[in-house]
Amino acid sequence: MISFTCDYNEGAHPAILDALVRTNMDQQPGYGADSYTESAKARIREAIGRPDAQVFLLTGGTQTNSTVIATMLRDYQGVIAAQTGHIAVHEAGAVEYTGHKVLTLPQREGKIGASDLKSYLEGYYADGSYDHMVFPGMIYISFPTEYGTLYSKAELQQIHSVCGEYGLPLFIDGARLGYGLMSPKCDVTLQELAGLCDVFTIGGTKVGALCGEAVVFPTGKAPEHFFTMVKQHGALLAKGRLTGIQFDTLFTDGLYLKIAANAIDRAMEVKSLFIEKGYELFLDSPTNQQFIILPQKAMDALAGKVAYEIWERLSDGRAVTRFATSWATTKEQVEELRKLLPEDK
Amino acid sequence: MISFTCDYNEGAHPAILDALVRTNMDQQPGYGADSYTESAKARIREAIGRPDAQVFLLTGGTQTNSTVIATMLRDYQGVIAAQTGHIAVHEAGAVEYTGHKVLTLPQREGKIGASDLKSYLEGYYADGSYDHMVFPGMIYISFPTEYGTLYSKAELQQIHSVCGEYGLPLFIDGARLGYGLMSPKCDVTLQELAGLCDVFTIGGTKVGALCGEAVVFPTGKAPEHFFTMVKQHGALLAKGRLTGIQFDTLFTDGLYLKIAANAIDRAMEVKSLFIEKGYELFLDSPTNQQFIILPQKAMDALAGKVAYEIWERLSDGRAVTRFATSWATTKEQVEELRKLLPEDK
Amino acid sequence: MISFTCDYNEGAHPAILDALVRTNMDQQPGYGADSYTESAKARIREAIGRPDAQVFLLTGGTQTNSTVIATMLRDYQGVIAAQTGHIAVHEAGAVEYTGHKVLTLPQREGKIGASDLKSYLEGYYADGSYDHMVFPGMIYISFPTEYGTLYSKAELQQIHSVCGEYGLPLFIDGARLGYGLMSPKCDVTLQELAGLCDVFTIGGTKVGALCGEAVVFPTGKAPEHFFTMVKQHGALLAKGRLTGIQFDTLFTDGLYLKIAANAIDRAMEVKSLFIEKGYELFLDSPTNQQFIILPQKAMDALAGKVAYEIWERLSDGRAVTRFATSWATTKEQVEELRKLLPEDK
Amino acid sequence: MISFTCDYNEGAHPAILDALVRTNMDQQPGYGADSYTESAKARIREAIGRPDAQVFLLTGGTQTNSTVIATMLRDYQGVIAAQTGHIAVHEAGAVEYTGHKVLTLPQREGKIGASDLKSYLEGYYADGSYDHMVFPGMIYISFPTEYGTLYSKAELQQIHSVCGEYGLPLFIDGARLGYGLMSPKCDVTLQELAGLCDVFTIGGTKVGALCGEAVVFPTGKAPEHFFTMVKQHGALLAKGRLTGIQFDTLFTDGLYLKIAANAIDRAMEVKSLFIEKGYELFLDSPTNQQFIILPQKAMDALAGKVAYEIWERLSDGRAVTRFATSWATTKEQVEELRKLLPEDK
Repeated sequence: MISFTCDYNEGAHPAILDALVRTNMDQQPGYGADSYTESAKARIREAIGRPDAQVFLLTGGTQTNSTVIATMLRDYQGVIAAQTGHIAVHEAGAVEYTGHKVLTLPQREGKIGASDLKSYLEGYYADGSYDHMVFPGMIYISFPTEYGTLYSKAELQQIHSVCGEYGLPLFIDGARLGYGLMSPKCDVTLQELAGLCDVFTIGGTKVGALCGEAVVFPTGKAPEHFFTMVKQHGALLAKGRLTGIQFDTLFTDGLYLKIAANAIDRAMEVKSLFIEKGYELFLDSPTNQQFIILPQKAMDALAGKVAYEIWERLSDGRAVTRFATSWATTKEQVEELRKLLPEDK
Repeated sequence: MISFTCDYNEGAHPAILDALVRTNMDQQPGYGADSYTESAKARIREAIGRPDAQVFLLTGGTQTNSTVIATMLRDYQGVIAAQTGHIAVHEAGAVEYTGHKVLTLPQREGKIGASDLKSYLEGYYADGSYDHMVFPGMIYISFPTEYGTLYSKAELQQIHSVCGEYGLPLFIDGARLGYGLMSPKCDVTLQELAGLCDVFTIGGTKVGALCGEAVVFPTGKAPEHFFTMVKQHGALLAKGRLTGIQFDTLFTDGLYLKIAANAIDRAMEVKSLFIEKGYELFLDSPTNQQFIILPQKAMDALAGKVAYEIWERLSDGRAVTRFATSWATTKEQVEELRKLLPEDK
Repeated sequence: MISFTCDYNEGAHPAILDALVRTNMDQQPGYGADSYTESAKARIREAIGRPDAQVFLLTGGTQTNSTVIATMLRDYQGVIAAQTGHIAVHEAGAVEYTGHKVLTLPQREGKIGASDLKSYLEGYYADGSYDHMVFPGMIYISFPTEYGTLYSKAELQQIHSVCGEYGLPLFIDGARLGYGLMSPKCDVTLQELAGLCDVFTIGGTKVGALCGEAVVFPTGKAPEHFFTMVKQHGALLAKGRLTGIQFDTLFTDGLYLKIAANAIDRAMEVKSLFIEKGYELFLDSPTNQQFIILPQKAMDALAGKVAYEIWERLSDGRAVTRFATSWATTKEQVEELRKLLPEDK
Repeated sequence: MISFTCDYNEGAHPAILDALVRTNMDQQPGYGADSYTESAKARIREAIGRPDAQVFLLTGGTQTNSTVIATMLRDYQGVIAAQTGHIAVHEAGAVEYTGHKVLTLPQREGKIGASDLKSYLEGYYADGSYDHMVFPGMIYISFPTEYGTLYSKAELQQIHSVCGEYGLPLFIDGARLGYGLMSPKCDVTLQELAGLCDVFTIGGTKVGALCGEAVVFPTGKAPEHFFTMVKQHGALLAKGRLTGIQFDTLFTDGLYLKIAANAIDRAMEVKSLFIEKGYELFLDSPTNQQFIILPQKAMDALAGKVAYEIWERLSDGRAVTRFATSWATTKEQVEELRKLLPEDK
């Protein structure tokens, strides 16, 4: 059985395990004061070209999103997101649990538009009773989005510019950041992206780590006492070395982007084989998540041999499915899929 | 430099790293549905002798405490704890952040007494305006306590009995559970402890794991939809295998207790050497945390060579210090401490 | 200057002031244990024909909604409401502040449909990852809605029936309940409405009281320790007599519905005069809020003489406006409006 | 039956009812934008001698405390209070419900000392792991305290000075402010008190109003968008005129302090009569709450004729009782108590 269900089916990139083994008995202080975490932070600062950036290493995605959002918002504020944004749908209300509303905007292929954002903000402040409503307090976008799509540099600039007009911080959820940056359709570099937001995350869990998300405040404007609030949110590891060693490894010799590239190469092969065999794409994703419309016949053929996710059942009996590749996906796995998949006719 | 500052200075027990390496490329579903997590849960149920127990694997201690407490309390309830309880002092207000008060009782060497608990509860319900106050909703104790001390079986039975009278669940924080169970002064077994509470945790982080706390509901009475609330609290790992593999290893062939025993052996040696050299114990701890009163001369002698924690400065210039051992502490480290420590005279 | 801006422009119905004056020096216990509150509760139970109903008197609408919703939901649940529901838009995120998401459904003239509700619930439970999402925990509808419209008895029965299928309580926000019940288009009685939901409110603030909302659990299933949680939400008056006396007065000799009828009579006159003068209705409201589309010429004519609310600016230069009547609106005020309003041509 | 159980047994001072009746049909905007509220705010600013003060009118005490505290604290902060402080004991955990810890200090007769406060703060920042704990974020004291006692001007200055050293705002809960200011033992004026804190409240509910607490930020430093957060806390009245008219009346011609004086005069008479008859004071309160130790014989004599509060049962069979007077207490009521009370012998 081969699985394309998600990008966290395997453990960690072997270099990470090697580093964990190698450093294992080295005594280090807890709570992120270890030398590996320090090194990881320095490497991330260097990778984004911002010596003044503040970097924090947390454990998981929902945890990171709710901690960042709750600590950056004031009580009277909510966070703006696409209706399909992860925080709006699949985080069990973690943001609301911290007392804040997720204010949703319409989306297209998982993305919000700068003009919709601007309309929303103009409309909000034009409303005579806006102070009876939740103030917009920050903007959340994901890169890549939940549909695998990417904002272009121009789109990021436009959104960032609207945020600037209204004094709202822009938060980019990079749970799959590597897979976005290595896409052939990506026209923004890591350094540029760091300059187009106020806080962003570098996802480890889905890009080769056992766990771990790096939170980066590129201009050094983390909320005061962010460390204590990370603890308050239950997001502080006693053995900070666990995330420290992993990000230190991922940001040594460009490993993070190198292994992300594998996922993209495999994803493009997956996309091609579906196209070649006559299948319809649900949308044309440039990253590691491929959304394909499968008829029952194809699903029957793969049953018990290839795992993937059913995204949505269509009324004609077909289903929108997701095939995800990762740093760990092999050419052999893709070839096996190719062999098992019948022509769509 | 040798460190006795805490029991999380090293990485993981080598058997855990071996297991992580061995299983690394095995494809598994996420969010705790992997086979390692299933196996770990089964082994824990077997170890406590309760086939109906529910087990959940979370990542860290503060996270686990606040998730368990918040999900077991109703809005009008708070949690009773010793004034020195970890949740009352050193978790950055994580319990309060979820909307609940920590109701504190006086403590002796980190422990609360059944009679103090009973007095509190009687007094509460005797107060004519109790419904203007926070209702006691559960009891939190730690085993061992923050001072390394242990409740005897009789003490646990008395507390459990008071809880029963008032219909209040008893939660035992076992962040260092192994170190308690392997103490020569411990008169309760893991199975017995499981029968004397409504929920308890088995600490992994401090007993050989990279991270991880097992939450056990011995009688299967986890709060409804606990899984979703774990996610809401940011405590659900995408790669649940990370904690699954670790607890599966720790509960194979009794590894958890075996490695805990090492910490106890080393701690007793540490205690002995301080006594032999004429130092005063702050209290007589039977577990892996030893609290010693050190004069400045001794601190000067150790400076730069042995690390430990300053717990409290005394007015006579001496300090209460904590020396913690762990699964990883070696006889050589204790001997080195012995060599460096001057006689106290 | 005459104001039609809202239904809380004046103080209280004179009978309420009389009662406050008459009872003023009578010594009574606090926190709702006074005899007036007891009497008010008894009268409300009688008016709805349910001797086992539980009644609580709170102060304001947002307070009441967030207290009821927060205390009826479990942590993993959110409340379903129309996109235009008051709790979703105009309560400054009060529900989210208590940790719960407002799950919105599409609306038509402020109402949700039973079939949309059912689709939502079916879709939710059909989603393979529903336990990563916010569980629907209760349904909120307003009667009349924010657009002055009313659910028919059949519509209420259908919604209530879907709620029953899924075990979800139905909450009817009756901030303007009297104005709904006295509408000529209303086909449900107070008693019937009480039988079609699990909790509802009887709005005092907008129907003749200085302040006060009665929360009614018709079948006596208030959340345990609701009193204490009302206090925790800051919603418990020390002088409970203030709301007790008011509701006691409003529910003596049918005053509540009698004074509500005045608002409806005046509202129908307002609607008629706009129609007669050739204006377009934004929608045909059967209650005390009338939504009229006004051109600039009409707004100029009324400027400085008649106050109303601008609801929304249209792209053609006209505006959707709201004219609200109340228990206090006089025929003279309506006649003055008629005189001042030019023909729309 | 005469009641001395509390200072909110009656309705409102007649001048308030007169004003409510007189202004009743005047049309006014909602949510505190009415002219009475504006006038009340101006009068309060004038009374405290601070033209730049910001004033907000809320409804009840617990509501006001939790709203002020929650909006002034950052997430990582708690509020310091006496162990007997109202927010620490009798508000059903309302502060914790907003996510913040109440950090308690020892008290003497309900008061905290500047030196205890300073020790706490010094100790906090001297603790090596202070960033794992709840940061002190503001200081809460009550004036008078829950035991009727008063801080002297010197004590307030000392506390205020410690607050200043640590940059912590001082919040004075004046639920019974008038009764404090009119005490013969009070050596601070309203203007002086306003200069010795960052925010304070002027209690209306217990000093002649039906409901209402004025929140005063003497130097104009209310939290940004306090209005919206008041709404979010369910503390915003639609008919703001209700509190506006009341405070406008109370601050016209010094009514607030005049009626407070009556309570003090009666309280001193009550104290004297207990002393004269040989009873023991629990403590010597200079304000409207008198704490007397009563033997069973006295309680039997008063049973069914005079109501008061049992504060605490003593082991010798006697009870600490509280007799509260108010703006409404008459000389006749005190004389009746004198007649009914036997000599204590």
